[in-house]
Amino acid sequence: MTHTSQELATFCKQKGFIYRSSEIYGGLTGFYDYGHLGTILKHNFQNAWRSYFLGLHDNFYEIDASEIMHENVFKASGHLENFVDPVTKCSECQVNYRADHLIEGVIGKRVEGLTPGQLTNLIEDHKIVCPSCNSELMPVEIVNMMFPIQLGVGSTQTGYLRPETAQSPYVNFKLQFELLRKKIPMGLAMIGKAYRNEISPRNLTLRQRAFTQAELQIFFNPHKVNEHPNFDKVKNYPLRVMLQEDREFNMVVERTVQELVERGLPKFYVYHLAVIQKFYFDLLKIPQEKFRFYELDDKEKAFYNKNHFDIEIDLNTYGFTEVGGLHYRTDHDLKGHQEISKEKMDVVDETTCEKFIPHVLELSFGVDRSVYALLDLNYHKDEQRGNDVLALPSDFTPFYCAVFPLVKNKDNIVEKSQEIYESLRKEFSCFYDQTASVGRRYARADEIGTKYCITIDFETLEDEAVTVRDRDTTEQQRIKIKELIHYLRDKK
Amino acid sequence: MTHTSQELATFCKQKGFIYRSSEIYGGLTGFYDYGHLGTILKHNFQNAWRSYFLGLHDNFYEIDASEIMHENVFKASGHLENFVDPVTKCSECQVNYRADHLIEGVIGKRVEGLTPGQLTNLIEDHKIVCPSCNSELMPVEIVNMMFPIQLGVGSTQTGYLRPETAQSPYVNFKLQFELLRKKIPMGLAMIGKAYRNEISPRNLTLRQRAFTQAELQIFFNPHKVNEHPNFDKVKNYPLRVMLQEDREFNMVVERTVQELVERGLPKFYVYHLAVIQKFYFDLLKIPQEKFRFYELDDKEKAFYNKNHFDIEIDLNTYGFTEVGGLHYRTDHDLKGHQEISKEKMDVVDETTCEKFIPHVLELSFGVDRSVYALLDLNYHKDEQRGNDVLALPSDFTPFYCAVFPLVKNKDNIVEKSQEIYESLRKEFSCFYDQTASVGRRYARADEIGTKYCITIDFETLEDEAVTVRDRDTTEQQRIKIKELIHYLRDKK
Repeated sequence: MTHTSQELATFCKQKGFIYRSSEIYGGLTGFYDYGHLGTILKHNFQNAWRSYFLGLHDNFYEIDASEIMHENVFKASGHLENFVDPVTKCSECQVNYRADHLIEGVIGKRVEGLTPGQLTNLIEDHKIVCPSCNSELMPVEIVNMMFPIQLGVGSTQTGYLRPETAQSPYVNFKLQFELLRKKIPMGLAMIGKAYRNEISPRNLTLRQRAFTQAELQIFFNPHKVNEHPNFDKVKNYPLRVMLQEDREFNMVVERTVQELVERGLPKFYVYHLAVIQKFYFDLLKIPQEKFRFYELDDKEKAFYNKNHFDIEIDLNTYGFTEVGGLHYRTDHDLKGHQEISKEKMDVVDETTCEKFIPHVLELSFGVDRSVYALLDLNYHKDEQRGNDVLALPSDFTPFYCAVFPLVKNKDNIVEKSQEIYESLRKEFSCFYDQTASVGRRYARADEIGTKYCITIDFETLEDEAVTVRDRDTTEQQRIKIKELIHYLRDKK
Repeated sequence: MTHTSQELATFCKQKGFIYRSSEIYGGLTGFYDYGHLGTILKHNFQNAWRSYFLGLHDNFYEIDASEIMHENVFKASGHLENFVDPVTKCSECQVNYRADHLIEGVIGKRVEGLTPGQLTNLIEDHKIVCPSCNSELMPVEIVNMMFPIQLGVGSTQTGYLRPETAQSPYVNFKLQFELLRKKIPMGLAMIGKAYRNEISPRNLTLRQRAFTQAELQIFFNPHKVNEHPNFDKVKNYPLRVMLQEDREFNMVVERTVQELVERGLPKFYVYHLAVIQKFYFDLLKIPQEKFRFYELDDKEKAFYNKNHFDIEIDLNTYGFTEVGGLHYRTDHDLKGHQEISKEKMDVVDETTCEKFIPHVLELSFGVDRSVYALLDLNYHKDEQRGNDVLALPSDFTPFYCAVFPLVKNKDNIVEKSQEIYESLRKEFSCFYDQTASVGRRYARADEIGTKYCITIDFETLEDEAVTVRDRDTTEQQRIKIKELIHYLRDKK
């Protein structure tokens, strides 16, 4: 482990990536703000996600829907009834705890899917007490995690802050299907906020009460679940998976796309596992050994999910942690909305003339968790340099390059520097810095992930060349100004 | 008037720009979703806003903060006490109305700033009754417009959905000031949601309960309010303003930046009026006569605003409508937060060594309202063509160009078309369409604002040229394929 989560949190605050919301009032538990650097990083992630996933198909589009939704949406989806957490309260200090998390922490085993009674028994069996005052805990109760909102005055209507972005595309499905001229498959992507009244928000942005999801809902013909037009292109691609059967040995096994299909997973599903893994490997540059797909068993996964793999990244301090998932939600949601709204959800596949309620494949990504992973895996204290380094991939780092005049009191050096800065900022994210020694400026640039530092010195005025220093190697190269843009472009 | 607001709303829904949220459940009053085209348009606006306003100064940055904030934030800002609306209820049918809006609709005069008692008197004097059942209205009461949120379980904490994005930068000010190495002026931009429990949401996205704001808060040295380093560059720029004194004649008068300064407005303030007008004229291409700055009088403006001009656009059906504002909020907010949080908000201007609590200039823009204005002013029914045309500026339109094969059953034409489509989509927003007649496809392209349609026909295979049709003139030009990218680039 190169750093603790506390060290990372301190770094994130000190540099302006992420810090507690409403901090001058002592913070608000479970809510975070992105500072000026975190905001760029989050945008970079969102833009990369958008162009990659919308680019998968001509009939994939993004929508942007209200966070507050009609009560009936959550009747239909089952959230009003089922979106609940088990809670136990200390009989003395009255603090509430997520019962399952508390128990898992003590007994070291997953207890997802157990009933309140079973959880209460586990607390008694293992003599689990209040972590803060050691008093007895009360029986486990079930609490709904949604935030209700009273709309209007007097005789109000109840709306809810959505607990997942997914319901927005489902509720929009029929209208968008008509608008997009009735073609299946159709994808509706959304990047937006979801809200959950977590009992114990914790671990910086890994478990918040308000968080950003990036999701792609693919509506498709269920009779075609065993095909995908591009399947052959990826069939030999090795996926890092941990099937239910691999748990016994706690092993991630590389299995090709084809192999997983032979084991009974649908082609349409496995194809998208490959697409997701490529996103994390090729774009986010997550080291392969830090990535896995974790297959949920029947007790763990939602009852409506036919297949469910979590996308997990091996984080410092926390180990493999869910950052997303691939969910085959079948027609559960559309059927539910059809029932409650009386709006017909069936469609006709124009290519086969079959009529059906589309099935849904949900590609779900936690934006905050992916951003956390990028920070966590790329941050390290460099003992040799004596400063932190944030080795973010070039497409994600807040600033790709920086321009430094060697000294700030020589007009012609400053002038030249600003000229170069102006030419670079048109194409690259770039900042200008003329305070402190060049060494100090290199260190500051390293800390926020800047890939290249360009220094303009006395020689520059004679040889029309600058010093380009690479963040990762610290190597310095002399580059002609007229070749600089091409150099930086090629390195990207 | 080229169309009614109802016609525009129908168009927005039929084409996938904007429609009611949770529509399959009858909608949720005051909430809207952006469909696949509206989402692109909204992104285009936000990206243009971001690059223009962040580009104004090296020390302007964007942050992204939680929508749910600590109760004390709104104690300090005054929202708990003052963010209230006057409401009157029908004694019979129990429907609630915004009293001021109701009265303004009847008597045709602004009544902003009047007390509940004065409003009740106006209702009695003008014998105003319930618009739906003609019964008597009850005395005007004051209702807070914020949405409270209960956090946690059992003994909960109250947070609030923020009623304006502005408080987020204020609460983040001190931390960001330290992070950005204590330089004044400092700008914190935010694009995000704000939530208000409007009594009578109405007029599509013009008055919603959840809406997106794009705001730039500039923290500056109050002793420098009468200067701006770039002032001379804009001093002769004519601004379209309606001062308080112009109201009598209901006239917008063109006055230069310099002239407004001579009339007593601070240079720092007027400079930013110019910057804002340029944004609407040069980027959004709003026709000059449809734009004005409307100066609020002391009764209308918030008590903490020293200067307040609304940015107004002349919309079909509604006339001049507020889409934003320039507010000189002084040190009201930071002072309030200092008092409640006990966190010192004073800073030192390194260039002058003065110590002060910064003053704030707020550049505030309604994203949904600006998008509405873009749709409203660029949409028209073209009688001659027999279809709608959405003449959005090239940088905002969802698709800049479209590629059509003349026929879809000739392999070599389709192949060539797809080749051209692939080369164009790398640089331009572009779609491919091969269904229906070319005339019908032109019409569909017009309706969603596509600037250029490129048709590949039989001749193309011989002369390596395509037909490019311009949305606005409907003129068609024959362009060589190898010159096509340059042609489209130059036209932008």
